[in-house]
Formats: sequence, structure tokens, C-alpha cells
Amino acid sequence: MEQVTLSEVQSAIEIELAQFLERQSQYLTSIAPELSSVAQSLSAFLLDGGKRLRPLFAYSGFIGAGGKTSSEVIRAMASLELLQACALIHDDLMDGSDTRRGKPSIHRHFESLHKSAQMQGFASRYGQAAAVLLGDLALVWSDQMLNSSGLSSDELLSVLPVHDEMRVELMAGQFLDVHEQTQKSTSVRRSLNIARFKSGKYTIQRPLHIGSAIAITDKKLRTHIDELYSNYGLPLGEAFQLRDDILGTFGNSQLTGKPTEDDLREGKHTVLIATTFERATQIELGELDRYFGKIDLNSDGIEKLQTIITATGARAYVEDLIEKLTSNALKALKDDEIADNGASLLKELAQLVTRRSK
Amino acid sequence: MEQVTLSEVQSAIEIELAQFLERQSQYLTSIAPELSSVAQSLSAFLLDGGKRLRPLFAYSGFIGAGGKTSSEVIRAMASLELLQACALIHDDLMDGSDTRRGKPSIHRHFESLHKSAQMQGFASRYGQAAAVLLGDLALVWSDQMLNSSGLSSDELLSVLPVHDEMRVELMAGQFLDVHEQTQKSTSVRRSLNIARFKSGKYTIQRPLHIGSAIAITDKKLRTHIDELYSNYGLPLGEAFQLRDDILGTFGNSQLTGKPTEDDLREGKHTVLIATTFERATQIELGELDRYFGKIDLNSDGIEKLQTIITATGARAYVEDLIEKLTSNALKALKDDEIADNGASLLKELAQLVTRRSK
Repeated sequence: MEQVTLSEVQSAIEIELAQFLERQSQYLTSIAPELSSVAQSLSAFLLDGGKRLRPLFAYSGFIGAGGKTSSEVIRAMASLELLQACALIHDDLMDGSDTRRGKPSIHRHFESLHKSAQMQGFASRYGQAAAVLLGDLALVWSDQMLNSSGLSSDELLSVLPVHDEMRVELMAGQFLDVHEQTQKSTSVRRSLNIARFKSGKYTIQRPLHIGSAIAITDKKLRTHIDELYSNYGLPLGEAFQLRDDILGTFGNSQLTGKPTEDDLREGKHTVLIATTFERATQIELGELDRYFGKIDLNSDGIEKLQTIITATGARAYVEDLIEKLTSNALKALKDDEIADNGASLLKELAQLVTRRSK
Repeated sequence: MEQVTLSEVQSAIEIELAQFLERQSQYLTSIAPELSSVAQSLSAFLLDGGKRLRPLFAYSGFIGAGGKTSSEVIRAMASLELLQACALIHDDLMDGSDTRRGKPSIHRHFESLHKSAQMQGFASRYGQAAAVLLGDLALVWSDQMLNSSGLSSDELLSVLPVHDEMRVELMAGQFLDVHEQTQKSTSVRRSLNIARFKSGKYTIQRPLHIGSAIAITDKKLRTHIDELYSNYGLPLGEAFQLRDDILGTFGNSQLTGKPTEDDLREGKHTVLIATTFERATQIELGELDRYFGKIDLNSDGIEKLQTIITATGARAYVEDLIEKLTSNALKALKDDEIADNGASLLKELAQLVTRRSK
């Protein structure tokens, strides 16, 4: 089973997730029937798409470090999707986003449930509370799925510290991102640091380290491969985030499942925007001031902003940066320490995360 | 060190928490100086009081199951305070509570930071996002503190499933509580079930099971003591919650650190209130309808509600129920399986949680 493709791994991840969610949903509704809405919404959220990037990176890191596929390992990797669900549910709540993958976000969904059942109190407050708790539950479930995956004691004890570190970095990155949006001026340096934590570390480097920690439980023996994974993961993660920024401004909302204008209306300090501000003329700065981050931004304003971002050369600069970061990342894969089948999965993933349109 | 008192354990817990927070705060600020507000607020929140009930129950459960004190064990138990911090921070956010232990709640604190630093955007949104993320971080830290406590592999692997189950039950209980407040009618049965999950299981039964799982790593060998702990923990946890309900309605806000009227203004469906509704006369129902759960409730209304709750006999009924549940709980301690020094700590704790005034 060593020559598996990414899509085969993806299917295996889906199956493990579905089984875990089925079992947990049954358990929840056995506590109280009122919990069926929680079980149903979380299952629908988890099983309705998603690229499964973090499990795929963890799996590829595992194979690259000489690991042999097993359903226990797939289960352990799949748990990262539950952590990601927590991040997304809480993110949508914090951003006040109405949709996720073209469907209502969790807080909006529970707001609707409140309204349609004509419950007591404020629908928006119920939606908010549900999103807080469903995110928390997803985080706890991710731990439970990892801990009960069937990894051997050595494997589990080896992976826990990496897993904990990754989650602290995730929350730190999330806070820095929230905090950045409260700053009066943009900064390419600060935005790149956030991209490093939110994506470089959380999405790619740490999942790879999780993979190597399961394949090689003696920490000293994986020092070199972990370094290679950092050299690959950090630049690629930044490239991934930069692609996200471009999709958040120029993407097709039909494909991304998110309104294109969200980043512009929110006034999100992405690297793309920080670069635009750095390069804008006085006249362009005036236009940016007029449209960027304005709640009532309309399609006219969006088009004006898109034109400026392109005209300053910021878009081309970011595209170029994506290319450079990706090519740097790929260099790390040339080292013999990474098993061939792992390296080829990682090459494929690098294309996938930097050339995507959703 | 076997004859330690509860207050000695409490001091040891404080020391472990302070050390962990000191180390983690340094790490956070090394990532980015912007994270110092996160580190400071979480440390202040954690180290500013709190009864440390869950660690104390876990410790007593450990001693009762024949465990020998060590700083590793204290550290593992202390991690439960970080989980509780997550629950409280998210709870205050969901309830929109302004204060916690007489100080601003986390979302209010970050709202103030936003205002005083004249940051961009909405202060309330920044406060909300910070509370979501600080709660998440506290949850992740609790895991990290447990995993890195220095417990032996066997002890850690034994405790993880119990710990995971406890956290799922906590989130389930929290959701049921939120959901209950959206119901048009009150129900003593439903409110008791919520008390069972939020307090019976999360605050007492599971911490005791965490203690026994560390002391006796072979699951079969702790079946009997775990049963005894359930027989003690579930009724006592309900009694604990009922005491909370009474303090939330009749308590001295100087001692509780929370405005007395919060439960009444929110219209919280506690067992006390559900009992009041069951026993109220038509005239009293009219008064309840007029004052209970009203945002503009003033001191006059509070007094009227307190009078009704007492007049219906609901308060005396709940006090009586607390007595009965506590005496049931104490019966379980008579079994020889529980080590004497553990049983005496558990007796003391039973008094502490049911007779407290804060």
C-alpha cells in the first residue's frame, strides 16, 4: 500500500472522519436529544468538502520519514481536520462571516434554527454561543480522535508535544491576525510574520513534524528530516497564505465559497494590501482611503480597489513571491533523507496549495 | 507528605500554575511582542483567586485510590484549572457578563485595551475575538500542561481517555445550558440534568476519575473505586450547582464577585427557578412574568422575585435537596476501598462546595 495517491489518502481520511463523527454523534444524542443539532451541524460542517490539507501534509511527512501506512495513522492524521474545524468555526464567528463553503456559517446556522423554532431570547446570541461551543467541542474531539486513534504508546507520546506546540502556535497566529486588523497602518513585515504562524507553521511545517514524530519516535533521529521539513514547510506555508490573499481579493466566489469582497470590506491587512499601500501614489492612496475597509463597499468600489492593487504592481509582486517561496520550498525535497514516495507526494501538494483557485 | 491538608495542596497548585504560566508567557512574547497582552491577561485571570476545586477533587481522588503525592501529579491536576479558565472565559462571553471575580471579564478587558489604545475597528468585536482565542489557548495550554506534567507513560496513557470524556461532557453540558435558556417553559428535570453534566460530571466525578486513573493505571482494578467516586461525585456535583443557583439569586455580590441579579435578569432556568414556577400561585406567576428575565430589572424587581422564590418554598426545597444530596454523597465514602486520608479530604471538600458563600 506504499504507492498510494493523494486522492486515495483523502478518501481514507473521509472514511475515518465519517466513522468518528457517527460514533460521537450517537454518544451526544444519547446524553440528551437537544444535542442532535450540535452533532448534525458539526458532522455536516466536517464532511462537506474541505481540502484535508493538514492531514495530507502529516501523511506525506510520515511517508517521507519512512513510515508505513496503516488505518491507525490515517485516523491520527484525520484528527487535524477537527482542529481545523474549530479554527474555522471560531474564525467565522470573530470575522462575522455569513458563509463558509457557500453555506451558512455555524453561528448563522444556529441563528436560523433559533428563529425558525421561535425560541426565547436573542437569535444572534444563541448563534454566537453555539459557535463558541461547537468550536470548543471540535477542538476536544480532535484530541480525542488522536488519542484514541490506535497509535502505539511510543508513537502517541512522541507526537503529543509537537501537536501541543502546533496548537499554541495556531492560537498565537490567530490572535496576531485579529490584532493586526486593529492597527492603523499596514506592514508587509508584520503580515508576513502572521502568514508564517497561521500557515507556514500551522498548516504545513507542524503537520509534517507530526508525521515524522509518528514515523521516527526517537526525537534525535529525526532532527535532520525535521529541519528539511521546516525548510520546505515555512516558505510553502507563506506561499499558501499569499495565494489565499489573492483569492480573497480576486477569486471567483463561486469556487471559493466566500464573497470575494470580504477581505476588502473588512479592510484585512494582508501582504497583498500592505504591498499595495507601500507602492501606491498619492492619488491611489486617496482612493484606497475612500474604499478599503468600508462596510458599504459596493461592486464599483471593489473594482476600483482591484484595479489599484494590480496597477501598483502589488499583485504581480505577490505572484512572484509565491513562485520564489515555492521554488525554495521544493529545494528542500532534494535531500536523500526524505523517502522518494514521500517527496513526490510533497511535490504534488506544493503545486496543489499554491496554484489552487479555491 | 501523605497527611497534607487541602490548603497545602492548594498552595502547591498555585506554584505549579504560576511556573507554567511564567514559562508560556515568555514563549508567547518571544513569538511577537503583541502577544504580551494575551500572556498577561491569561496569567492574571488564572492567578487571581479561584477555588481550584477540580484539581482538589482530582488530587483527593488520587490519594483516595492509594496514590502517593508528587509534584508531577500536582502539575497534572493543576492543568484542570486551565480548562476551567477556558470554560469561564467562553461562558462570560456567551452570557455577556461584564465581570468575573469583581474584575472585568476577558472580553470587556480587551474591549478597554482597544479603546484606550484608540485602535482601529470596533472595540466590542476585538474584545469578543480575544475572548474566543484566549479561551481556546487556555484549553490548549491545559492539555500541554497535562501532557508535559512528567507523569509516567502509563499514567498519562491511562488518564487521557478519562480527560477527553470529561471535556466532551463539559461542552455538552454547556450547550444544554445555553439551549435551556431558549426554552419557553422551565423544567426541574431538564435543569437537574444540566446540573448533572455541568457540575456532577465535570466538576467532581471526572476529576475524581482522573485521580484514580493516575493512581491505578489498570482500568479493571479501579472499577469499584470509580463507582464509589460516581456515587459520591454525581449527587455532590448537583448539590454544588444548586448552591451556585442560590448564590446567583440570594448571594452577596461582594463575596461572589458577580452581580446578584445576573441570573434573574438573564432569566436563567435554574432548578431554583424551575421549582418556583412549579409552585407559584396565579398571582405569583403574574409577578414572575413581569420581572423575571427582564433586561431592565431594578433592585425593586429583584426584591420582589426573591420574595416569591422564598414564599413558594422553592428556596427551602432547594436547601433541603442540597442537604439530601450531600448526605447521599457522603455515604459512598464509608467503603473501605477509599484510603482514609483520601476519604477525609473528600469529606472536607463536600462541606466546602455545598456550604460556601462565594
